Amino acid sequence: MTVLVVGSVALDSVETPFGKADDVLGGSGVFFSSSASHFTKVQLVGVVGSDYPMERLRGLEGRGVDLAGVETADGESFRWRGRYRHDLNSAETLETRLGVFSNFRPKIPAQFRDAPFVFLANIDPRLQLEVLKQVNRPRLIACDTMNFWIESRRHELLELLGRVDLITLNDGEARQLTEQSNLIKAAKWIMARGPRHVIIKKGEHGAFMFSEDRVFFAPAYPLENVFDPTGAGDSFAGGFIGWLARSGDLGEANLRRAVVYGSAMGSFAVEGFSNARLLEVTRSEITARIDEFARLVAFDTSLPA
Amino acid sequence: MTVLVVGSVALDSVETPFGKADDVLGGSGVFFSSSASHFTKVQLVGVVGSDYPMERLRGLEGRGVDLAGVETADGESFRWRGRYRHDLNSAETLETRLGVFSNFRPKIPAQFRDAPFVFLANIDPRLQLEVLKQVNRPRLIACDTMNFWIESRRHELLELLGRVDLITLNDGEARQLTEQSNLIKAAKWIMARGPRHVIIKKGEHGAFMFSEDRVFFAPAYPLENVFDPTGAGDSFAGGFIGWLARSGDLGEANLRRAVVYGSAMGSFAVEGFSNARLLEVTRSEITARIDEFARLVAFDTSLPA
Repeated sequence: MTVLVVGSVALDSVETPFGKADDVLGGSGVFFSSSASHFTKVQLVGVVGSDYPMERLRGLEGRGVDLAGVETADGESFRWRGRYRHDLNSAETLETRLGVFSNFRPKIPAQFRDAPFVFLANIDPRLQLEVLKQVNRPRLIACDTMNFWIESRRHELLELLGRVDLITLNDGEARQLTEQSNLIKAAKWIMARGPRHVIIKKGEHGAFMFSEDRVFFAPAYPLENVFDPTGAGDSFAGGFIGWLARSGDLGEANLRRAVVYGSAMGSFAVEGFSNARLLEVTRSEITARIDEFARLVAFDTSLPA
Repeated sequence: MTVLVVGSVALDSVETPFGKADDVLGGSGVFFSSSASHFTKVQLVGVVGSDYPMERLRGLEGRGVDLAGVETADGESFRWRGRYRHDLNSAETLETRLGVFSNFRPKIPAQFRDAPFVFLANIDPRLQLEVLKQVNRPRLIACDTMNFWIESRRHELLELLGRVDLITLNDGEARQLTEQSNLIKAAKWIMARGPRHVIIKKGEHGAFMFSEDRVFFAPAYPLENVFDPTGAGDSFAGGFIGWLARSGDLGEANLRRAVVYGSAMGSFAVEGFSNARLLEVTRSEITARIDEFARLVAFDTSLPA
């Protein structure tokens, strides 16, 4: 089944202890699409400036990403420049230039409105709500958010919570949104306001999925070399939603499997700059990594005699 | 099989967001013994001052902890006073009074010298090395350490690494010791200097066990209420070594199971002040928590048709 994603399409300039890259493809919509395209057809909605290297973005089309919803507006593309030092868990933002993204009003093309899976990547909750007015009863609506919207659009974000099935956010954001330092309490707080599932991402420390009274945990895959952490969260979401859309199964067992696919895609994302590693990774490498996840946490509870 | 532990026997005064306790039983030797006593006989070696409430410590004897190695010296007992604020991951030390612990020279009673499992809790590496001269070829020697010794006794600590089979330390300590920010690299660095197994504890983020080219990860059990984190690491070690000693099996599958027992005991430790919850927990509660660990990480990699 198809996934519709609405998010940013950006140009990133990134410096890490391992190198640097300038004006490479970035943005939540790009990372999500690159990741999800391994599993299913993707429809991307976003905006770029007239300076955007569309020929590079069009590389996604060959992978089943429909770019009909990527509008080109007069002006500069959204640019983010950041640096990671030795603590690869947190980026230092050096510059953000919103450009045409600051006036973005998502317009969902008619042929995208029946997408059964919808991911509202990290954009203004007002826009996330506008998207929901333009789609026809998806089977699953998921969203992401960030500290900036939690502070500045709290009211709209709470309204959005009442309309989504699932939210992904990181541990700091969950604590900030709920004012609960304990993550179980934070997840309960969020579920009480709408979402049936809450995924709390902890970066290199893995991810929790909370569903009613159940909790699932997947570690982050331990990598010896993390090249560039940018986009890991959106790549996680792409693997997670992509897998759900491919299988069409929203049962607990498959949701757990989807979290592991998400973690696997997040781990590939950080092995290269931009979406480079995400695009080159093969089906058999993905399957091998899923098996490694299984070995990583496997233990046998049967007691010796 | 019996476990010999050499560590501190202290009086802790602790303040957490949930309450406070003054002059309660503490110290690495006490937490380790309380935890390991659920699985096997324990021999404790340490020192207390003449002011120590021995009648409370003697409560451990009924659980199979032999206190013949706990020496009473003239002077004050080791006292630690600390506070946890909302971030329950890190203690703020308000006061440390070493008392008789500052002149501690471990003397292993003759009847303890053949213990097949030895845990050198977090004390001066010089003393840890002295203990090893007094024991007869144990089947497994494990040690713990801390930032203070990594700074002040680096040479002796490296010598110790060459003589132990396993080390437990937290992620910050592993990075400090090895000057590697990546934990896989840190574990390889340590294994190259002796230990066949390295357990890196990440507090609420779980624990890694590295063995040659294998890695196992166990999450921390997600608790809605963490009452007092003091002693979680030593309780982990007590569950881990206690389980190994009970079963006598040092194979990979059983080492993994032991990590989960360690995580379970760590999770009980933080549910009460001092060792109170550790002492009251029942065999069936332990078994139930092991099962919950299995459910927490369970996923099925078989693909739908």
